[in-house]
Amino acid sequence: MPPVICVVGKSNAGKTTLIEKLVSELKSRGRKVGTIKHDVHGFTIDHEGKDSYRHKAAGSWATAISSPQSIAIVQDVETELEPVEIAELYLDGCEIVIAEGYKRSKLPKIEISRAEASTELLCADEDILLAVATDHKPETKAPLFDVNDAKGIVDLIEKKFLVEPSAASAELYVNGKRVPMKGFVKDIISGSLKGMLSSLKGIENLDGTIVFKIKGGK
Amino acid sequence: MPPVICVVGKSNAGKTTLIEKLVSELKSRGRKVGTIKHDVHGFTIDHEGKDSYRHKAAGSWATAISSPQSIAIVQDVETELEPVEIAELYLDGCEIVIAEGYKRSKLPKIEISRAEASTELLCADEDILLAVATDHKPETKAPLFDVNDAKGIVDLIEKKFLVEPSAASAELYVNGKRVPMKGFVKDIISGSLKGMLSSLKGIENLDGTIVFKIKGGK
Repeated sequence: MPPVICVVGKSNAGKTTLIEKLVSELKSRGRKVGTIKHDVHGFTIDHEGKDSYRHKAAGSWATAISSPQSIAIVQDVETELEPVEIAELYLDGCEIVIAEGYKRSKLPKIEISRAEASTELLCADEDILLAVATDHKPETKAPLFDVNDAKGIVDLIEKKFLVEPSAASAELYVNGKRVPMKGFVKDIISGSLKGMLSSLKGIENLDGTIVFKIKGGK
Repeated sequence: MPPVICVVGKSNAGKTTLIEKLVSELKSRGRKVGTIKHDVHGFTIDHEGKDSYRHKAAGSWATAISSPQSIAIVQDVETELEPVEIAELYLDGCEIVIAEGYKRSKLPKIEISRAEASTELLCADEDILLAVATDHKPETKAPLFDVNDAKGIVDLIEKKFLVEPSAASAELYVNGKRVPMKGFVKDIISGSLKGMLSSLKGIENLDGTIVFKIKGGK
């Protein structure tokens, strides 16, 4: 799963503008970036009258629109998904995910703070405050950047989150719920599964991503 | 993966209207339906100026918008996804997927045909033609339904695709590519994995869906 960072700040502090700059800078460095916009009031995305809009309005649980350049999905949820669930389920092909909002989450945060709104920071927890993009000098141990210094903030993001992983990772989901596994358990199950799979025809190498999915049955 | 059925027909034959009726009828029977709209010319879905639109326009590879009721994803693709890939990757929570278009695919099809457009059918392959929704009597061995008979067509869909699976299914993906497994191999690997997982804490039952994902490492 890609790491998730939240950009937080008061209303109109410039969260979206900062995200635009970070995305653009990360993209220029060849990074595949995912973003999440948190919309607590609900949203409409598709255009009324379009075929895909009509599918969804008729009662589909999820509707996809697919073209040679892109794909879009609109899907109902029973309860709101956490940013890490979204990253896991939908943004797994990205190297890094930047979420706008989620100020109450415990994820690493970049806060944008402008003196004209307030000189106090939203994020009091310095353990998760990665950086502050600001036009003043807020009291914090976190490094301060100019509100336009996307390069400086992206340098920090790359240093903290985008080093190549050296070891294998393994994740387990049962009925959609992530089940934590300790290192030893991960290793023994991954190793056994890889051992079994290595004898199958049609498998060239097992160094990339393996997904094994079981449904139903006792 | 849910079964995928394509609704095909000439331009303006009423494909979207038929899909609306099928979705609504399936939903009224408690079915979780996914749909796919094929848009060969590309599409715009989000609204210019919205935060999520700005994220994507700045160069994100994928942008999600999340609310308590729904989630939407807009994602770039390198090559167009096949309907079964879309069903697999994004619509796996659905019981059935109805795609609009994809007349050249080999997936099971429902054709809508109106005399005023043409009395000839688009789908000549009777092995994959499930049904024809029509206002005339086209020459085919496939069963004919009135263009408004969503109940009749859904009865057929339920009979053919929505019987409960009795046995466990297992799927394997290596580096995004599906690797076919024979029944014996499926059973032995699924059984071993379930055996190992059954000793983990935090797992209540293993009768539902299990996803085991390994990344990297030798």
